[in-house]
Amino acid sequence: MFIPTIPATNNETLAALLDKAINNKTKPLGSLGVLESLAKQIGLVQNTRDVAITQPAILVFAADHGVVAEGISAYPQDVTWQMVENFLARGAAINVFATQNNCELRVIDAGVNHDFGPRDGLTDRKLARGTQNFAHEPAMSRSTCEAALAAGMALAAELKGNVVGFGEMGIGNTTAAAALMHKLTGIPVAQCVGAGTGLSAEGVLHKQCVIEAAAAKHDVTEPLDVLATFGGLEIAMMAGAMLKAADLRKVLLIDGFIVTSALLVAARLQPAILDYCVFAHCSNENGHQQMLTALGAKPLLNLGLRLGEGTGCALALPLLHASVNFLNQMATFESAQVSEKSE
Amino acid sequence: MFIPTIPATNNETLAALLDKAINNKTKPLGSLGVLESLAKQIGLVQNTRDVAITQPAILVFAADHGVVAEGISAYPQDVTWQMVENFLARGAAINVFATQNNCELRVIDAGVNHDFGPRDGLTDRKLARGTQNFAHEPAMSRSTCEAALAAGMALAAELKGNVVGFGEMGIGNTTAAAALMHKLTGIPVAQCVGAGTGLSAEGVLHKQCVIEAAAAKHDVTEPLDVLATFGGLEIAMMAGAMLKAADLRKVLLIDGFIVTSALLVAARLQPAILDYCVFAHCSNENGHQQMLTALGAKPLLNLGLRLGEGTGCALALPLLHASVNFLNQMATFESAQVSEKSE
Repeated sequence: MFIPTIPATNNETLAALLDKAINNKTKPLGSLGVLESLAKQIGLVQNTRDVAITQPAILVFAADHGVVAEGISAYPQDVTWQMVENFLARGAAINVFATQNNCELRVIDAGVNHDFGPRDGLTDRKLARGTQNFAHEPAMSRSTCEAALAAGMALAAELKGNVVGFGEMGIGNTTAAAALMHKLTGIPVAQCVGAGTGLSAEGVLHKQCVIEAAAAKHDVTEPLDVLATFGGLEIAMMAGAMLKAADLRKVLLIDGFIVTSALLVAARLQPAILDYCVFAHCSNENGHQQMLTALGAKPLLNLGLRLGEGTGCALALPLLHASVNFLNQMATFESAQVSEKSE
Repeated sequence: MFIPTIPATNNETLAALLDKAINNKTKPLGSLGVLESLAKQIGLVQNTRDVAITQPAILVFAADHGVVAEGISAYPQDVTWQMVENFLARGAAINVFATQNNCELRVIDAGVNHDFGPRDGLTDRKLARGTQNFAHEPAMSRSTCEAALAAGMALAAELKGNVVGFGEMGIGNTTAAAALMHKLTGIPVAQCVGAGTGLSAEGVLHKQCVIEAAAAKHDVTEPLDVLATFGGLEIAMMAGAMLKAADLRKVLLIDGFIVTSALLVAARLQPAILDYCVFAHCSNENGHQQMLTALGAKPLLNLGLRLGEGTGCALALPLLHASVNFLNQMATFESAQVSEKSE
């Protein structure tokens, strides 16, 4: 299948221009910390000194997971479609945070085990009523996986804005994400699994055993084979959307554990995609910090969130605006006639 | 002088009501992390289940410091008034971030060594053209210190909103704040001093020596005596404003190293003031993390900022809105007909 080639964003001339612009602002050198590197990164992604954030959007991909039959989630599978209904009724956390921060929200049915019918606000890209149970067989065929990637790419191509956040809903998907993490990084399963929506310690151990058995059963290593075998339709569609969004030089805003697992797949295919990524937060889900470390990622926020839905992206968005705004709006030492540092 | 008595915000009945409201929202228990404790805290401060943020404001207090004569800053003293001019011209980082987050900004001349004349947007509460050099004599008299506290209280009493952030500008004020920290916590000066606006390692060592000599010279322990001896007019005025704002049951948003040193004084006078405080961020200034630890404080953000001006407050404000908004706007499991956790 066609995967776009993502170039690194490095551009020494532009980087020097951005550094100079940042350093001339009326503040001690480096005193805006992470916001300074963020402003520079956005400039490099957008390939311009005139950074801007236009029409940011969060795409929330929903799908079901056959592996829930193994009893690896604290909530029943029906919660996936019920929460999609909650998104459509604007009652979920992501609705509240996206609205607060003037961010468009788009909900995509990538493969929920429920018939929604045609619905305002729901983008139907359903490829199946959930995946197969990877404890027994691959979650999806390679061709379904590629169809999900292609659907994600098409969705990203439709976006008008230049910043795109990613979110997800899918009961069982921390199990899929932990399996992807283990297979793609080699980190032991015990360090990849967590409580998800709220498993007991016993439940987490069972989840670990299910993943370990499946990882032993399915001998796959190529990233798209791993994705097809253990992933979810929402995860595959997200990975496709990420690749296309980077290809279009948008800033990618990465949420928690599951979204980061989709990026992990995308980054194994196109490593330079990481140049385009802003990591919204470190979640409280056990494996997330290590997954971020494996990607060399430093998240903006650390608020103990473990909700998914793209909530971390929506909460981090004001910091992206702040980085662009200081670069565009602050006075320089010269324009404000402020004395510079002594000698 | 009159200091208001600040009551603790604990109210078991209300706390239980808030917990129940938070836990009934359509999300796994505890999955909004810090935002959940923040929503509860705001409810307890406002003493209501119906939390709201109205007309948030940031007060930026500016003043000069006699101790700059000891060569403890990387920037000349004139930068204090020049940056106040920059605030008035809306060119500083705090202007950009306050505007972005719809936060009123009020700039107060508590004691800048410059004649601004009557100016739109500047509140003149100048008590002196800076403090005395505490390397030789107390920074201010006890009566001047009390006048600054009283002026701060009067300013807080004028505020219409229920959330107030604090910021400052004053070349030399990390030296004053480090001295306050040392005297009020007993933490060695070496752990209280930092680079401020950008001192070299040698410069930091000199700053440490200046503070150590002054701390040995002035044998004071009572909080207001310590404040008068080592503080600044902006720090004293802030401490007064904090006490009055808590007395009026407003949420106090605490910025970086200098603002936290003002709170340290206030908390030594009225320990329950800490119930009203939200700590915006942990700054990159060396002593801040330890000062926060001494106060038992957990900051919301950790972005490597060391700019002051209240910038951390402005950047944290969207998280306060998010905590109030999820509590007010999210659906409950019942209202959204979402299944709850299995047994």
